[in-house]
Amino acid sequence: MRPDPSVAEVEAYLHRHIPLSADMGVSVVACDAQGATLRAPLEPNINHRATVFGGSASAVAILSAWTWLHFALRAAGQEPRLVIQRNSVEYLAPITAVFEARCEALPCEMLGRFIRTLERHGKARAVMPAELRCAGKIVATFSGEFVAMKVPAREIT
Amino acid sequence: MRPDPSVAEVEAYLHRHIPLSADMGVSVVACDAQGATLRAPLEPNINHRATVFGGSASAVAILSAWTWLHFALRAAGQEPRLVIQRNSVEYLAPITAVFEARCEALPCEMLGRFIRTLERHGKARAVMPAELRCAGKIVATFSGEFVAMKVPAREIT
Repeated sequence: MRPDPSVAEVEAYLHRHIPLSADMGVSVVACDAQGATLRAPLEPNINHRATVFGGSASAVAILSAWTWLHFALRAAGQEPRLVIQRNSVEYLAPITAVFEARCEALPCEMLGRFIRTLERHGKARAVMPAELRCAGKIVATFSGEFVAMKVPAREIT
Repeated sequence: MRPDPSVAEVEAYLHRHIPLSADMGVSVVACDAQGATLRAPLEPNINHRATVFGGSASAVAILSAWTWLHFALRAAGQEPRLVIQRNSVEYLAPITAVFEARCEALPCEMLGRFIRTLERHGKARAVMPAELRCAGKIVATFSGEFVAMKVPAREIT
């Protein structure tokens, strides 16, 4: 087991490896055994109606789910290729200010099963929900299906 | 009827009103009665696997559908508030280079019905599909539900 990274480390990782996260002004509020919370301001994500562009809302939601699963697997000593296969988003209300995407942790037993499946079959699948909030109100809901695939040791970077 | 804007005008509109489109390097390949095609390069949209971040793919797909519908309505003299209510994306293959999102026009009779509904009820709804291609291959499919709402004249900007 590796220790959990700090929020600053997670944020630096995202900004380095997924530069659009820096363009969107994404900061990491939490990333731990309970879940991941990312925050993004209005300005770089604004649209023609002075609210958050749906594409930004969707991207920050995807990122919250990916981030939690990536670092949860890393904490368990796994470094699979982790990709999104499908997602859906419901936009419930205009996002008029700074917003947060929260992905709750998979229950412990589900994460354990995910890791055992990955170990045995080289591949595992999980559906991760996330919620977007602005000023305390839920403004969008997200569900994404992610697939982890073991990669040959030489491919790990 | 307003004349169709040029691709340069559409691109300038997107970059000005949705600045993330400029960060993603989005260019407008086509926006006319047949549909809208947007293009985005790999570099600003890259992820930790050196392929396109799912959030970017999703955002460019949303933008292609929104762009076509926005300019089709504008050409018909309509300037409603046009927002996305839900969307789903299937990621079929890694996107390893410059990619395009193509949203085909609504069939003429559907666009006509959409505009009549908007005129009569102040609100209309349309499901817009889009496809993402990279090197000629379909790499993702998108479906988004958009709602147009008439806005009081004083709100139009």
